[in-house]
Order: sequence, then structure tokens, then C-alpha cells
Amino acid sequence: MGKTIRVTVWNEFRHEQNEKHEASKVYPEGMHAVIAAALAKEPDFEVRTATLDEPEHGLTEEVLANTDVLTWWGHAAHQEVQETIVERVHQRVLLDGMGIILLHSAHYSKIFKKLMGTTCSLKWREVGEKERLWIVEPGHPIATGLVDYFEVPHTEMYGERFDIPAPDTLVFVSWFQGGEVFRSGCCYHRGNGKVFYFRPGHETFPIYYQPEVQRVLINACRWAAPNGAPNPTFGNRKPLEEF
Amino acid sequence: MGKTIRVTVWNEFRHEQNEKHEASKVYPEGMHAVIAAALAKEPDFEVRTATLDEPEHGLTEEVLANTDVLTWWGHAAHQEVQETIVERVHQRVLLDGMGIILLHSAHYSKIFKKLMGTTCSLKWREVGEKERLWIVEPGHPIATGLVDYFEVPHTEMYGERFDIPAPDTLVFVSWFQGGEVFRSGCCYHRGNGKVFYFRPGHETFPIYYQPEVQRVLINACRWAAPNGAPNPTFGNRKPLEEF
Amino acid sequence: MGKTIRVTVWNEFRHEQNEKHEASKVYPEGMHAVIAAALAKEPDFEVRTATLDEPEHGLTEEVLANTDVLTWWGHAAHQEVQETIVERVHQRVLLDGMGIILLHSAHYSKIFKKLMGTTCSLKWREVGEKERLWIVEPGHPIATGLVDYFEVPHTEMYGERFDIPAPDTLVFVSWFQGGEVFRSGCCYHRGNGKVFYFRPGHETFPIYYQPEVQRVLINACRWAAPNGAPNPTFGNRKPLEEF
Amino acid sequence: MGKTIRVTVWNEFRHEQNEKHEASKVYPEGMHAVIAAALAKEPDFEVRTATLDEPEHGLTEEVLANTDVLTWWGHAAHQEVQETIVERVHQRVLLDGMGIILLHSAHYSKIFKKLMGTTCSLKWREVGEKERLWIVEPGHPIATGLVDYFEVPHTEMYGERFDIPAPDTLVFVSWFQGGEVFRSGCCYHRGNGKVFYFRPGHETFPIYYQPEVQRVLINACRWAAPNGAPNPTFGNRKPLEEF
Repeated sequence: MGKTIRVTVWNEFRHEQNEKHEASKVYPEGMHAVIAAALAKEPDFEVRTATLDEPEHGLTEEVLANTDVLTWWGHAAHQEVQETIVERVHQRVLLDGMGIILLHSAHYSKIFKKLMGTTCSLKWREVGEKERLWIVEPGHPIATGLVDYFEVPHTEMYGERFDIPAPDTLVFVSWFQGGEVFRSGCCYHRGNGKVFYFRPGHETFPIYYQPEVQRVLINACRWAAPNGAPNPTFGNRKPLEEF
Repeated sequence: MGKTIRVTVWNEFRHEQNEKHEASKVYPEGMHAVIAAALAKEPDFEVRTATLDEPEHGLTEEVLANTDVLTWWGHAAHQEVQETIVERVHQRVLLDGMGIILLHSAHYSKIFKKLMGTTCSLKWREVGEKERLWIVEPGHPIATGLVDYFEVPHTEMYGERFDIPAPDTLVFVSWFQGGEVFRSGCCYHRGNGKVFYFRPGHETFPIYYQPEVQRVLINACRWAAPNGAPNPTFGNRKPLEEF
Repeated sequence: MGKTIRVTVWNEFRHEQNEKHEASKVYPEGMHAVIAAALAKEPDFEVRTATLDEPEHGLTEEVLANTDVLTWWGHAAHQEVQETIVERVHQRVLLDGMGIILLHSAHYSKIFKKLMGTTCSLKWREVGEKERLWIVEPGHPIATGLVDYFEVPHTEMYGERFDIPAPDTLVFVSWFQGGEVFRSGCCYHRGNGKVFYFRPGHETFPIYYQPEVQRVLINACRWAAPNGAPNPTFGNRKPLEEF
Repeated sequence: MGKTIRVTVWNEFRHEQNEKHEASKVYPEGMHAVIAAALAKEPDFEVRTATLDEPEHGLTEEVLANTDVLTWWGHAAHQEVQETIVERVHQRVLLDGMGIILLHSAHYSKIFKKLMGTTCSLKWREVGEKERLWIVEPGHPIATGLVDYFEVPHTEMYGERFDIPAPDTLVFVSWFQGGEVFRSGCCYHRGNGKVFYFRPGHETFPIYYQPEVQRVLINACRWAAPNGAPNPTFGNRKPLEEF
């Protein structure tokens, strides 16, 4: 309540730096810049960014130690993310309760697959069709401020079967013009941390400029913020009772 | 395994008996007759039917005591179902583990609302549009024999928000031509019993003749059959340990 | 964030008014007074109380319209709670998203059974044994500020099988000296609202004075507060897409 | 239904081959021999065994291709299991729907941690105390034939917080003499496959000789058997609808 939430917006940031790529026109400063700007309007959010090509991908021990919620966008360079950084993020989620929000093509990131334990595969199509996200759990914090559904006018399609564990809570289900559906907003507890997968977003459609999408990202950061639980203690224990 | 599953197919059976109603042409013997015939082809199924206008709605103590799985279709006459029978079915599910499969407009039946504890409301439209049911949990017994998706060419639309408890397992999600989605195959444990809500079906579209729909009904009966657990024992207990 | 949470603490308040009952010594002003005092220390909580013997059980339309979270303690007089009030509370949870927290013997209240759809039965014993509540989901908001477990030195035992729907999230599991276990902290979404069942509490053991128990109640009120979702709209709809 | 279930019982099989280890007396042929013998009594089960020190740990492509359900016991040599075999088992579960049953100390096996995505850590104590497993979902197939609870007279304790994803279905919760509780029977869908973690079992306590434990293992094999779903197809798709 009133506590500052420190968000680190991570981006692969490759498409946008390629002048020949359409992404450089839609997101000239990178998707992370647009996302970070949207989040930074919240008075209780403290937002920084980090990208793949920074040393340690911008995710040093020090940065992670000062991150309550990490948002993650990756696509073409999942394989370039170093195992040690993946491991570091994984531990930070499980042990310290850092929240993590996986965006769109991050369904195939190493960290999401490691957290889920499944292939995280899906069907896809890139023809710019319409998507309509229906709210199936309207009382959930991540649905705050939204009513019934919202639309993304042009997007890449992701379709079921999405090979993930059934979410602890399913918040959004997408309808696509081409005939598919998708579980688009999926909440998980993992270790001390919270994980949210959010489907919308793309490097060349201006989806992260949409107010409804920004609304969800803000809500998700609040929901995913750690509750301050200490590192769990495991291992050998003396009995608490005599017998 | 190899054990006989005794199924009672319950139907409101009003639309079909009204000669002026289109239902009387599509299902001249009633929907229950078509459903029962499909189920009766399974060598280990023993199938009977029951309808609203029979004494005790055909659901006497004796019938229920000999029913492993009850399927339920109702629409226009939910309010005519007597409370004592609803209570009897409810107890038979919770205490004896009888499976119950709620079909289409049975989302608004007294028994489903009583089992769910919510309004079970939804959005709807009756223009004969196309529905495509996507399998989101392909390894679940109720999805056996189906691949990826199946279509219902003309149907009534049901759309989210469907006000139900989040299912224990979500097996199907529907796409509708008009732009909606729906959680169409929902599994629940309630008491000793299992509950399955299955969206497809309608009094004037010939949906219960579809092989995929019949496949799901057969699978659902197998899944919902009781495991033989005795009535749970509750109440005052002596300690199991000294202290 | 910073928004006031209006809590109504409801109590049957019969045991405590009976001078011959031990409860009158442990909770001379009623359990609701102790619970309300604990909650009222939170600067963002606005707390009132209501009891069975007030007109409309203290739960008028106006009171409920100004309640974000209702806590409920009942035991001997569940049957005296009027159906109209139960219905009113039920609708307020499902439609308006009011949170509801059911305490101890409220497992058998009409409103809890109505929300759950099951018998809500359990095993019990009243010999004053020790209970230890283990945190099984430490990152959940309701576990905030607690570590590993906490103990209730003397309590009534409740044991499994507890006939409830599997919770959306299970936060606490109890160990009892006499040999039983119990799912003691159970979270549910129902309609627009959130429901939390919390086992600890009793009319003659001073459990609601315990800081850990008060901590859970405060956390649960925050978690259960509505997210402001409007009443869901259901019913007939025009297509959103042409076809 | 009546279909043969091919079970492979895998065991680390080190403790039992060490003549100085108590395990060699309790399980002279190995725990796998006792488990396999119990399962082989089921007329529809076809049972084989495999152990760590066989080539490819006895889990060749051919063996896995002919395995419907794999049970796994490991303890001291988790690190010796080759990554390629772990990957092979993982793929066989996710893609082909092979069931996998993880036993006791297999909570720390590579395959379980990979499937869960969490640390799978817990508290433990080895003093031979009593465990009582309570059935919290009596209608579940894995609880078939059991009533209320069963006891393991002497065992190693495992205590919460058990760092796993919340199970899709929680079937058993354990009570321990020393004061802890544990989620002892945990069901998951992962990919096309089903996963069951079952806590009881130990290298020196004769737990796998217990009829109730054998009952659970038989039930779990039936529940976890694949439903025949084909390998899911993912990747690029043409629209199913024109627009």
C-alpha cells in the first residue's frame, strides 16, 4: 500500500535497431521505452529498462536485487540469453518472490519455458488480423478498469493448443478473426514469486501504445509485486512435537 | 475397468412434443432419445432416459440409486423442476459420487446453479452461426479421440463472461463467428462426485447427431463415473493420537 | 492503493451475551468487537459491526452497499439467518464483487454453503488441542508478514475430508495434535467477488486476540476488496462481427 | 478400457546393492522389484523395470516408446542421470502423453524439477516417525478403494513449504508426528501427459510393501495412462475463416 514498486522493463531490442525493419519506425526507441513510459506514469512505480546487448543483458545481480517486477520481451534472440542470467532470474523469482511478466513472443523465452516446464509451443499466423480479448475473471486485480473485452485491431495470431500448465487463474481469452482462440492472460504462483503471461504485443504492430494494454501491464505489475516473504528455508528439521 | 456404467439421460422434453416447434422435426423422439442411442452403443454402458413430465421427473430414489452418471438437458421449464428432486440429485452427487453432465441451456438449471453457487449467467445469440471448439487440455480423458478442434456448423452462441467458478480443468474453449469465446468444457469435483458442463447442443440444431459431440458425451460419462468412494463420514471424532 | 476499504464485521453474537457461557468472559463485548478493533488499526480501513439480532441482521441494503468486505462468524444460529439476507449478501458478492471472509464455524453458514454448492461438512473435536497452521503458498497476499507457520495453542479441531470445492488457491494447511489435517485458508473467486475461508477462531478460546490471526484477517480484507468491476452484463447480444 | 497399460518401474537401485546399507535387507532385490511385483498383479498391466546403471539407464528410445507410465525412484544419484535421458523422458511426457509417477525422494530428481519449474525443495527429518495420509479428494480416481486416511507407521518426514506449483488436483495431505504437514499426492497435466507426485516411500522403511501404498500406485498408473492424443501440432497456420 503506497509502497514503491520497482519495475525493470527488459527488451531484446534488436528488431527496433535495424533500420530496415518496420519495427524501427513503430518503436524507434524500442518497445521497452514505450512500455517503461506507460508504467512510469504511476506515481508509485519506479521504472528502469534493460536490454539484451548490455553487459549481463542489463540484469546484473545489483539490478535484479533492486527489481520487484521484471517484464520480458524477446523474439529472435532467445538463444542468445545466457544460461547464467536465466538461472539468476529464475532464482530471483522462486526465492525472493520477484514478479515476472512475459510478453507475447516471450512464450518461447528460456526463462518462461524453465518456469513452466513445458514446451510453451502454440500455433501462429502473421497477417494483421483482429484480436478481441475477453475478460473471463472480471474480479481479478489484473482485470481492474476493463469491462467485458477489448480489441487489438491488427495483430499476429497465437492459437491453442498453447502447451502450458493450466494457469492458477485465467484472466483473458482471445478471439481471432481467422478462427482461433487463446488463453491470453495466465497467472501463476511459482516459488515465492508470481508469473503473468500476457499475449498482446508485437514488434511492428503498435500494440504497446494501446491504453487497454498499458492498463493490463500496470495492473499486472501491482499484482506481481512481491509480498515480502523471506527466502524459504528448507532442509533438515528437528521435531516440533515430542513423541 | 470393464465395469458397467449406468447412465440416465434426462430431458425436459417439451419443445420436441410441441408439433408447431421446429424441435419436433429435428428430434421427433426427443433429444434424450438421440443422446441415449449414441451412448447405448458403448458395450459397457447401460442407458435409460427420464423426462420432466414423468412422476418425480423420472428421477425416483430408485432410479437415482441405480444411476452412475446423469446427463441433463433443460431450457424453458427449469422452474418446474421440483426442489425435492433437485435436492435429491444434489445429495446423490455430493454423497454417493454420481456423475452429472450438464448440457447447453442446463447452465441455468436449478441443479447446476446449486452445484456452482454462482449465477451461471452468460451472453447469448440465436442466429445459427458457426462454433469451433478448441481442445486446450488434449491429454484429458474427455478429449480422447479428438484432435485440435471440431466445429458445430450452426448453433446458438454463448459468450463470456460465463459466471461460473473457474473449472478444476478446462478442456474446451469455443470460438464463435460473431466474435465471442466461451469456456465450453468445464470439469469439477463436487463432494464425492464429478460435474461436467458441456456447451454444445440446442433444441433445433441437430448437434446431438454429430459424432464429435457424441464422442465427448461418451468420454464424459466414463470420466464422471463414480470411483466407489463410500459416503463421507463427518462429525465428532476422538483423537487418533494421545497428547 | 491508498483507497479506503470499508469492512463490516458480522457476528452471530449469542454465546457472548449468555452470562453463563464461557464466551461471555473471553469476549465480553463479542468476538466482533475484538476483530473490528484489530482491523480498525489499519489507517485505510473503515470498520463497522453488525449482528444477528439487529433488524435485518444489521445487513440492510444500505449497509451492504457501503461494505467492501464482510467478515462472518456464526455457529449456533445459522438457521435463524433469513433467506432474504442470505440472498442479498450472495448477490452483493457475485454482482458487486464484495469480498466475504468466513470464519471458523461459518463453514456451516447458509451463505458459505450457498457460495460453495457443497455440504461444507467436516470432522471436529473440542478438547482444546494445539493447531499449527503451515503456509503452503508463501507468496500469496494473505500470507504477507508470516513465516513458515504459526500456532494456536488451544483450539477446536476441524479435520479432513472438508467437503468444499478445491480452492482456487490454498494458503494454509493445519496440523492438529490429535492426528488430523485441514485446509485452513482457502481462496475463491465467485462472480465478481472474492471469498476466503479461514479456520481459526472459536467462541471460548481467545484466538481472535492472537497477532498472527489478526494479521491474516487484515491481509484477507485487502485481498478480498473489490476491484471495482461493474456489474457483469449478460443476456442477448448482437454479433460483434459480420458474417 | 481393458486396454493394456505398459508400466516401466525405474529405480536408482544403489542403496539396495550396498550390502552394508540397511536397504539391502529391506529390499534385497531393489525397491523396483517390490513395486513391479505389486503392479504386475493387475491383469491389464504389463510391467518391466529399469535402473540407473543399465545402459542409457535402461530408458532407451525403444523402452520409452513402449512405456505408457513410468514410475521413478531416485535419491543419492540424481546428478548421475544423464541430461539426454532426462530430455528424452521429458519429451515423451509432453509430446506422447506418457504418464510419470515420482516417488518420495524423486522430488529432487532432474525430471521432476524440469517438469515443475521450481526448486521442489522441502523440509525433512529421518527419525522413523508416524505419517497419516488424509484423503482430501475422495472422488478422484487415485483415491479409489481408500477411505478417510491411511497410516505409514515409520517414515522419513517431509514438511511444507514444498516448493512446487499448486497441483491441478490435490489428493492426499500428510500429518506427521513431529508437527508438520505435506501435500503428499499431487496431480498435474503437463503437455499431453499426466504427472503424479506421491510422497510415501523410503529405502529402509518397508513402505512399498504396504497394501494402501500399492493401491495408490495401481490407481495412479491407471489415471496417468495416456489417452492416445497424437503429438500436438504447432507452428504456422493458415486462417480457418476468411476475412
